[in-house]
Amino acid sequence: MSSPKKVIVVTGVGNGTGTGGSTAKLFAEKGYYVAVLSRGWVVLLSLRIILLSQSRYAAQAAAFPLESYSPQDITAAWEAINTRFPKPEFRIEAAVYNASHGIWKPFLEITDQDLQDCLQNSVAGAFAFARGAITVFKDNEIDGIGKRGTLIFTGATASLRGNVTTSAFSASKHALRALSQSLAKEFGKSNIHVAHSIIDGGILVDWLRKYRDEAWAANEDGRLNPESIANAYYYLSQQDRSAWTWELDLRPAHEKW
Amino acid sequence: MSSPKKVIVVTGVGNGTGTGGSTAKLFAEKGYYVAVLSRGWVVLLSLRIILLSQSRYAAQAAAFPLESYSPQDITAAWEAINTRFPKPEFRIEAAVYNASHGIWKPFLEITDQDLQDCLQNSVAGAFAFARGAITVFKDNEIDGIGKRGTLIFTGATASLRGNVTTSAFSASKHALRALSQSLAKEFGKSNIHVAHSIIDGGILVDWLRKYRDEAWAANEDGRLNPESIANAYYYLSQQDRSAWTWELDLRPAHEKW
Amino acid sequence: MSSPKKVIVVTGVGNGTGTGGSTAKLFAEKGYYVAVLSRGWVVLLSLRIILLSQSRYAAQAAAFPLESYSPQDITAAWEAINTRFPKPEFRIEAAVYNASHGIWKPFLEITDQDLQDCLQNSVAGAFAFARGAITVFKDNEIDGIGKRGTLIFTGATASLRGNVTTSAFSASKHALRALSQSLAKEFGKSNIHVAHSIIDGGILVDWLRKYRDEAWAANEDGRLNPESIANAYYYLSQQDRSAWTWELDLRPAHEKW
Amino acid sequence: MSSPKKVIVVTGVGNGTGTGGSTAKLFAEKGYYVAVLSRGWVVLLSLRIILLSQSRYAAQAAAFPLESYSPQDITAAWEAINTRFPKPEFRIEAAVYNASHGIWKPFLEITDQDLQDCLQNSVAGAFAFARGAITVFKDNEIDGIGKRGTLIFTGATASLRGNVTTSAFSASKHALRALSQSLAKEFGKSNIHVAHSIIDGGILVDWLRKYRDEAWAANEDGRLNPESIANAYYYLSQQDRSAWTWELDLRPAHEKW
Repeated sequence: MSSPKKVIVVTGVGNGTGTGGSTAKLFAEKGYYVAVLSRGWVVLLSLRIILLSQSRYAAQAAAFPLESYSPQDITAAWEAINTRFPKPEFRIEAAVYNASHGIWKPFLEITDQDLQDCLQNSVAGAFAFARGAITVFKDNEIDGIGKRGTLIFTGATASLRGNVTTSAFSASKHALRALSQSLAKEFGKSNIHVAHSIIDGGILVDWLRKYRDEAWAANEDGRLNPESIANAYYYLSQQDRSAWTWELDLRPAHEKW
Repeated sequence: MSSPKKVIVVTGVGNGTGTGGSTAKLFAEKGYYVAVLSRGWVVLLSLRIILLSQSRYAAQAAAFPLESYSPQDITAAWEAINTRFPKPEFRIEAAVYNASHGIWKPFLEITDQDLQDCLQNSVAGAFAFARGAITVFKDNEIDGIGKRGTLIFTGATASLRGNVTTSAFSASKHALRALSQSLAKEFGKSNIHVAHSIIDGGILVDWLRKYRDEAWAANEDGRLNPESIANAYYYLSQQDRSAWTWELDLRPAHEKW
Repeated sequence: MSSPKKVIVVTGVGNGTGTGGSTAKLFAEKGYYVAVLSRGWVVLLSLRIILLSQSRYAAQAAAFPLESYSPQDITAAWEAINTRFPKPEFRIEAAVYNASHGIWKPFLEITDQDLQDCLQNSVAGAFAFARGAITVFKDNEIDGIGKRGTLIFTGATASLRGNVTTSAFSASKHALRALSQSLAKEFGKSNIHVAHSIIDGGILVDWLRKYRDEAWAANEDGRLNPESIANAYYYLSQQDRSAWTWELDLRPAHEKW
Repeated sequence: MSSPKKVIVVTGVGNGTGTGGSTAKLFAEKGYYVAVLSRGWVVLLSLRIILLSQSRYAAQAAAFPLESYSPQDITAAWEAINTRFPKPEFRIEAAVYNASHGIWKPFLEITDQDLQDCLQNSVAGAFAFARGAITVFKDNEIDGIGKRGTLIFTGATASLRGNVTTSAFSASKHALRALSQSLAKEFGKSNIHVAHSIIDGGILVDWLRKYRDEAWAANEDGRLNPESIANAYYYLSQQDRSAWTWELDLRPAHEKW
């Protein structure tokens, strides 16, 4: 009997130019099937086209559009993913939660809805996503490097420090970090690897390019390539059972911190 | 013209035997008027009776029952507080947010509702409470020690570390800590002091006594007196503008940590 | 039999205008005998005069000049202190280690001697000082608030973060913080309270006044009063056994952090 | 003109079975020349033999025995290394400081010499080693991934937390961490990458095998393979300029933390 086809689930893919998109592409190149989740049909289709055209991995990509990052929608997406990639043909063994809702405002201007959006995208949605991933991983066999699966969360500078204008955003990112640490401790002993990254700098993505100038985009020492973040995630997914990283930070060479 | 009467607002008072109740009593003894918020009429009345009988501070206490720690209910309570303690007769200058929803369960048993309860009590409710407090403080004059007001949040061990069975609770407590740090940085320059405590041990309160034995309650080195936490909060409220503490930890002498 | 006279030992007193000097004065006002240690005779005499004149506490102060903060000199000072304040007449129950050697230089300009000075003042000296204090405290009876003694270390922003130009200084301050945490955990169960402060801002002391302008000194929201730090240390020394603080930060209201 | 031969310098190699030895071997396999530093001739020769026999990389390895980790001895070793691997034939582009002096004793049993040994191995020696590495790196051209060099320090659980019996060891490890953070911030802008690992568990090395039983060594989920740590170090050395990690933790899957 042949070994199962490996699958990664990536949430927060947007238009495919950011961390989620690069992660999807890199794992596809490494031979993974890729389930991508994000809000909106268009971006998911565009990603699928990107994967098709660039990577010759047409058959490997499946898009799962989300109405929102509510627990209900995330849970429904996991059901669809499990249906699309059934055992024993497939082995879902990696999952990346990469969604967030960034709000930078003076505290008195932040609305209850703003806060709710932050908490949904970075906490309640992450919680439901983790439940889906861990439920699947628990039934996996332990592989050659000692793993049933790897679950990675994307954090930010605000995961470590609150600051002026980040009362809502950093609250949600701190919560995500705590969730990831609790899960790492609870499920390490089940050979499920949970990790958390601190992205400490601007990422070279389409939406951020609009706010910065050309010099910023051109300075390779001043912003993160999403491909380099994807490299880190791939490295984490390949760490063997004897030496797992829960947390690493990533920042450009010239970042002031 | 006489100086205004000082007021403290305390949330999370429960039946009056814990941190909130002790804080209310201590500030009453120091001459403050006390607005206490909590869920349920009975406990609030009981607290009022406690304040009346023990402290001879009948006129100073006002109870504001909450249906829930939703932003709506918290915001409504602040309106009632401001009506009850109007300027310039009163000066609301201290506020303590002390509510939380403790859940200790294996991750896969935590429901979306459990998480929602944690996030409401420790994050969304705290957010609305802070908005009420800071809105009031901003209009205060700077007093003799350089303050417009002091806002204190009660944290826990789980504010610093996620752990097995705390994926929901520590997420909410991390978020509260981030909120408090953001506020401290944003409003320090407006002479509003925001502080956060790490309660690292069991508090000698009625509900916890039920889970522990007599030896635990009898061991003065093994659990926190709520009165001692109240002392810390009073000390924080009296720190002058040149040396403010954002965060302090509090634990019993013999606590293992 | 009358109760013993309480004694505090304070290291790093300098010319008496800083944290050490203010701590000495405040504890003298609270009724403590005060043993002050510092390098150089002149400053110690000047402090003694200050205590004599300002506080009417002539008999209470004793100066112990140090050649250096080497373990040998610190250990010798403790012998002299124990001789000067013998049991059972005296009870040495508080000790503050407040010495440090600040060096802010680009890494490649820091000499091995610079580093050695930092390590001696903030680590080896602190180690010997702690040994002296804990050896004395262990023989004390537990007092009414559950303590045999309180040992406080003065930290800095650099205790939490290394930064450009602080490779030597922050290394030594991180080490001091670790020492204080280890001691807090080891000796809490012996009812010895060990605490650590993070002084996150400039202190209004003579030597720093020279580097800053008048506006800095005049801005009460922009620098720490040594008296306010002393207040914090006194509060820590009075915490009862049920709620001890290991660490608190202190910064001016308008400090950017 | 051919490109220079890449060189890594590794300190703390011991008998070659630990982190230093594995790092040396892995980088040799990746094509690096390897300069190994450690105390004692025998272990260095043994390592050289290991490299010769196992890796067929005889010509690549050079051993530099140390009398001690004093700044003088480390500095002398760097001179010898620079002589052995001169520019432009060679490019020293990676350096790993992996020495430490572990002492676990009750505080009152730790001698001044114990502390001095800890401070020399983890702080003063590391300081001199970093000076040697950075001085060399600064003259390197920036390579294809945006680097002049990578300097990695090996930390431990005690780098983050002091604990009972670690007052000396954790002090020295906290200091090392602070040094690494200061250097990362100071030299990132010169395209020198400084990183720090937190080794949070027992490593499968000869000296530790003696203290543990067979079951411990046999449990792949319970101790770190030095080869896996070496993998992490190699990954760090290959991170491109847009996404550098300062710190990552490494622990076995089943480690309780």
